[in-house]
Amino acid sequence: MNVSRCGRCALFLLASLAVAPAWPADPAPAVDPAVLAKIRDAALSSDWAWQRLADLTDKIGPRLSGSPQAEAAVTQVSDALRAAGLKVTLQPATVPHWVRGEEQAELVDWPGRPAGLTQRLVLTTLGGSVATPDAGLTAPVLVVHSFDDLKAHAAEAKGRIVLFDYAFNQGLADNGQAMTAYSQAVAYRVQGASAAARLGAVASLIRSVGGADFRLPHTGVMKYEEDAPKIPTAALSAEDAMWVARLSAQGPVSLHLKLTPQTLPDADSHNVLADLPGREKPDEVVLVSGHLDSWDLAQGAIDDGAGVAAAMGAVQVLKSLGLKPRRTVRVVAWMNEENGSGGSKAYFAANKDRIAQQVAAIESDSGAGQPLGVIASVTKDSEAQLKAVTAALQPIGATALDRREGEVGADIDPLQQAGVPGFAPLVDTRQYFWYHHTAADTLDKVKPENLRRQVAVMAVLAYYLAEMPDPLPRVPVRAAE
Amino acid sequence: MNVSRCGRCALFLLASLAVAPAWPADPAPAVDPAVLAKIRDAALSSDWAWQRLADLTDKIGPRLSGSPQAEAAVTQVSDALRAAGLKVTLQPATVPHWVRGEEQAELVDWPGRPAGLTQRLVLTTLGGSVATPDAGLTAPVLVVHSFDDLKAHAAEAKGRIVLFDYAFNQGLADNGQAMTAYSQAVAYRVQGASAAARLGAVASLIRSVGGADFRLPHTGVMKYEEDAPKIPTAALSAEDAMWVARLSAQGPVSLHLKLTPQTLPDADSHNVLADLPGREKPDEVVLVSGHLDSWDLAQGAIDDGAGVAAAMGAVQVLKSLGLKPRRTVRVVAWMNEENGSGGSKAYFAANKDRIAQQVAAIESDSGAGQPLGVIASVTKDSEAQLKAVTAALQPIGATALDRREGEVGADIDPLQQAGVPGFAPLVDTRQYFWYHHTAADTLDKVKPENLRRQVAVMAVLAYYLAEMPDPLPRVPVRAAE
Repeated sequence: MNVSRCGRCALFLLASLAVAPAWPADPAPAVDPAVLAKIRDAALSSDWAWQRLADLTDKIGPRLSGSPQAEAAVTQVSDALRAAGLKVTLQPATVPHWVRGEEQAELVDWPGRPAGLTQRLVLTTLGGSVATPDAGLTAPVLVVHSFDDLKAHAAEAKGRIVLFDYAFNQGLADNGQAMTAYSQAVAYRVQGASAAARLGAVASLIRSVGGADFRLPHTGVMKYEEDAPKIPTAALSAEDAMWVARLSAQGPVSLHLKLTPQTLPDADSHNVLADLPGREKPDEVVLVSGHLDSWDLAQGAIDDGAGVAAAMGAVQVLKSLGLKPRRTVRVVAWMNEENGSGGSKAYFAANKDRIAQQVAAIESDSGAGQPLGVIASVTKDSEAQLKAVTAALQPIGATALDRREGEVGADIDPLQQAGVPGFAPLVDTRQYFWYHHTAADTLDKVKPENLRRQVAVMAVLAYYLAEMPDPLPRVPVRAAE
Repeated sequence: MNVSRCGRCALFLLASLAVAPAWPADPAPAVDPAVLAKIRDAALSSDWAWQRLADLTDKIGPRLSGSPQAEAAVTQVSDALRAAGLKVTLQPATVPHWVRGEEQAELVDWPGRPAGLTQRLVLTTLGGSVATPDAGLTAPVLVVHSFDDLKAHAAEAKGRIVLFDYAFNQGLADNGQAMTAYSQAVAYRVQGASAAARLGAVASLIRSVGGADFRLPHTGVMKYEEDAPKIPTAALSAEDAMWVARLSAQGPVSLHLKLTPQTLPDADSHNVLADLPGREKPDEVVLVSGHLDSWDLAQGAIDDGAGVAAAMGAVQVLKSLGLKPRRTVRVVAWMNEENGSGGSKAYFAANKDRIAQQVAAIESDSGAGQPLGVIASVTKDSEAQLKAVTAALQPIGATALDRREGEVGADIDPLQQAGVPGFAPLVDTRQYFWYHHTAADTLDKVKPENLRRQVAVMAVLAYYLAEMPDPLPRVPVRAAE
């Protein structure tokens, strides 16, 4: 509940009880609402972004950093932005090059096992993991449900495969708090291997970070800490994690695990930048962005093909309407959000000495659910200035202005840390983690009408930020989280 | 709407408007309602069936006919029924022995393909399919949406891989008509390969028969017709079928397909029979059954571990209460429902000369959704006699008496064809085809409370049919469908 709004209601109520209504006259709008409405409606009637998304997902598919597909995506997106009349540049970025190999796991011993039988488990290697020995490894399992639980069983981890059976809280996600649920569970994906390795474990597994129950393993990046040996690590599907946990509660369980990923030398890649130059202040830039790389299990439609396509579409709409806002609007298709942020670092390095010219940054990276408003990492005083944006978006139901502090997009966060106001579309994420980082992140998961609405949100917001007479105030500089 | 019920309402209304209410005195119940209530409540408070299901799915898992797992299941289930105090016999049955091999498919050409790229498709071989050549095969794709559509493009099928992109109608399933949706779509799974082969196709693919969108391929049996060459056949996930169809609408698409299944010599297997002998007419038998075999991609929890466990649990409840109904109640755990009905045929062959002694047959094979009542293939006149059953089940919401003609269970259908009244629990099947024949048919899909309720339905029904003074009337003899 928003207390200040209630305060205002009370004031209005008092005013209306007194004498004649005395509504304060609105100041002249900073940006013509009719233009914002025209941008919104043009976005809603265009399938240009959808076609870009279909090309990217159907014709290229998975785009893990360092892969030939990622480079094909750079070319395809550059061509499309150039054809839309924008000024395209490729910004070099160095990215890791991790390649998934075979991934197999089977139960080889369990309570009540009929002689000679084994059972196949569904899993996927986590991004960045080292490999098992070529022949695989076989070890007993230690099931724990949290880091505290691991600590309580520290003496039992040596020589074992530790399984972190921590359930993603879909109930939170159902209630609109998907990112909270994600941040709780993802700790095991990122830090689990080193936590287990410190205690002598030979491998670590997690329960997939994501909701729904369709036996889908969810991949994603993991990190090795410097103080622990590097052990192989993978995500079981939620079903398989529960299965191993049920058996393990009845007696000893052993697994055979074979993972053969490789970490190749870092690769050269690129961010794609495309400018609609500003008419008065071309050196001042409003970024509109999504990330071009994806995980390798699927087409990367919701993560983050939709974000890239919406960013492209937002600027294409402005261009197609012949609009030329005061400042430059720049599409950025980021490379390497998923496992290293090489593109984000490259952009920041190239702009850190002129950081004041980066006046705002928008990133869409929460899928293609129905847009419900705007997330804004801005100063408290900026809030009122943004009402024109949500007012223009009211007809599509994107009415919320969700002011936050801190990161609102992984790729724009270095800019945010340096004081740049950051933005993201607020979208319905209740189903986002059903598909996130799985083989089921495919084009059919994106509803064309939701993508059009997201284009509308980003186009209206970008135009507003680029057109308003003075840039929004900077946010406080902060350290990386 | 049930017209006869309305007619009765009108009569009651007239009666109440006349003089004093003159409710007809109920005839003495055929079976004591207090005993039915006791059976129901005992079923609802027991986890015996759940433990059987957990043992079957977690400790053995997939149980395709002819596999070592299927034989292990025969042993496990026999042991459990014997331990419950029932008289167990193994009935020999000959079953096919088909073994899935590798299964790989990739897009090797499509419109807009970046040079050198290929894309992996998710698919699973259909049960009974022949193999591709060892090196696989590569061919252009012909996408059709129905058999009529194939006919319209008959001249284009030669040398191609035909994809039947027919969508399972989840809307029908959501509306309680899952079996209608299934029968519409399954025609392509069963008959598609021969229809394509007659026109010279080199392989055939279907869109998976099932709802939901989690990139799950659904396997299941297919049949080769005698007048067509045998070509390999598989099911793409719904997502992949849509993907290929989208690309194909834009230009030529080619696939590489490698499937290496084997059909081995028929195997010897068994139905498991377990009797609770009748106190007065031990030669008269009421069957309570589910099928023990499953597909090979998952644990077979909903198809049909739950059915077997509920059937076992139903008789175990009667036994544990010390009840001994008039007739014999016989658990049958059928072998080979999925791909040949070897067990069903064996049982019928062994009993066809004494078919009058088979007084009723119950089979559960529609999953473990919430039970809503009883499906009964009985004469119209029998309906009134079954009201005591649904009355006893009213507290758990299983109130519907859904009278049908024809098959209500694949394994009991030979008995039904010969005149035996057939029964099945009526369950919520809205989500059944999300999981049916996929890797996601795992124990967690079964809610313990729904399994307990299904045990209650089957136990009350079985007891009633075995205890009523006279058996229900036979149904008309009919030919196989």
